Amino acid sequence: MQQGLALMSQSGLEGITLGVLAHQVGMSKSGLFAHFQSKEDVQIGLLDYMAELANARVVAPAMRAAEGLPQLNVLVANWLGWAQRAGLPGGCPVAAGLFEFDDVESPVRDKIQELEGRWRNLLTRIVERAASLGHLRPDLDVDQFVWELSGIYLGHHAAHRFLRAADADRRAQIAFQALLERAGAAAAKTPPKPKKRKSSR
Amino acid sequence: MQQGLALMSQSGLEGITLGVLAHQVGMSKSGLFAHFQSKEDVQIGLLDYMAELANARVVAPAMRAAEGLPQLNVLVANWLGWAQRAGLPGGCPVAAGLFEFDDVESPVRDKIQELEGRWRNLLTRIVERAASLGHLRPDLDVDQFVWELSGIYLGHHAAHRFLRAADADRRAQIAFQALLERAGAAAAKTPPKPKKRKSSR
Repeated sequence: MQQGLALMSQSGLEGITLGVLAHQVGMSKSGLFAHFQSKEDVQIGLLDYMAELANARVVAPAMRAAEGLPQLNVLVANWLGWAQRAGLPGGCPVAAGLFEFDDVESPVRDKIQELEGRWRNLLTRIVERAASLGHLRPDLDVDQFVWELSGIYLGHHAAHRFLRAADADRRAQIAFQALLERAGAAAAKTPPKPKKRKSSR
Repeated sequence: MQQGLALMSQSGLEGITLGVLAHQVGMSKSGLFAHFQSKEDVQIGLLDYMAELANARVVAPAMRAAEGLPQLNVLVANWLGWAQRAGLPGGCPVAAGLFEFDDVESPVRDKIQELEGRWRNLLTRIVERAASLGHLRPDLDVDQFVWELSGIYLGHHAAHRFLRAADADRRAQIAFQALLERAGAAAAKTPPKPKKRKSSR
């Protein structure tokens, strides 16, 4: 699976041929077809496997962090560039799929949409939690925050992978910090108020 | 050309087959090969034609606007979603190419990189001009501004084209306005100083 996914990350979802995939994973084409009914089945299987990998590499470490802003920071740090660190030299297949499958009606598109939707829901829940804990502004437009964060991720993917820009990580971090600041996170960085007297607020 | 480009925008650069393209433009495959030596030649020819189209649709209107911030505003307004308005139902081929050709070494990749580089240079010049005219902060990190603006464009492309989100334009505008505000554009919205006395500045 890992080899199939590595191949997919490089050749794009549609660039996978069963012959090359079979060679990579050391199976015959007919052996591969015993597992999967079609090329679409293979693509969907690889995307599901990718989601497991992303859960282990990106989501799990964040779940071990303290709720709210710390969790969001760990999640974003692990998200940016996650695919290469997870052994997918061609980058994130879902990011590529957002551009490759925008016009294609297929079960593969549906799977990408499902994964992207689940991912944005997770981001939304974590940002909402950060706001409800007072780490971000209580009136924050969470959907807008997640929308812009997704743009930073795509911009980083393009800068890092296509343009091969050495400063991609740094620029993404600056953008993310600015987004946090706009969302009121600066307040979370200031030390807590001295507790000399009880405030009524 | 327009039909070929429309096809490319939908099927992706690698998805173009000479047979389908020939059918679309009403030529025989051999007739098409008389013009182009290879599929890569066709892709590069279409990308060059796309650049002409983008110049006419996106750049030219901006060049007619007042220098600085007005020019930047017109450029961005025409840039977001430009491809569909220009008759490319599948969206911007360069945006898609940034994800499709990140791992492929080819003359097509080189062409995409050239177009993306020229585009970012144009953005850089216009943002620099806005800063030097006092429409944006004089100490603005222009490269960072252009980097984040490119992320907004990619986020808009994914939201609009893949997710088919009705609020993509609105979210991109909010993100762009926030970027402008961080860059000090709010100052440009205040009315010009009264000209009662000559300033030495």
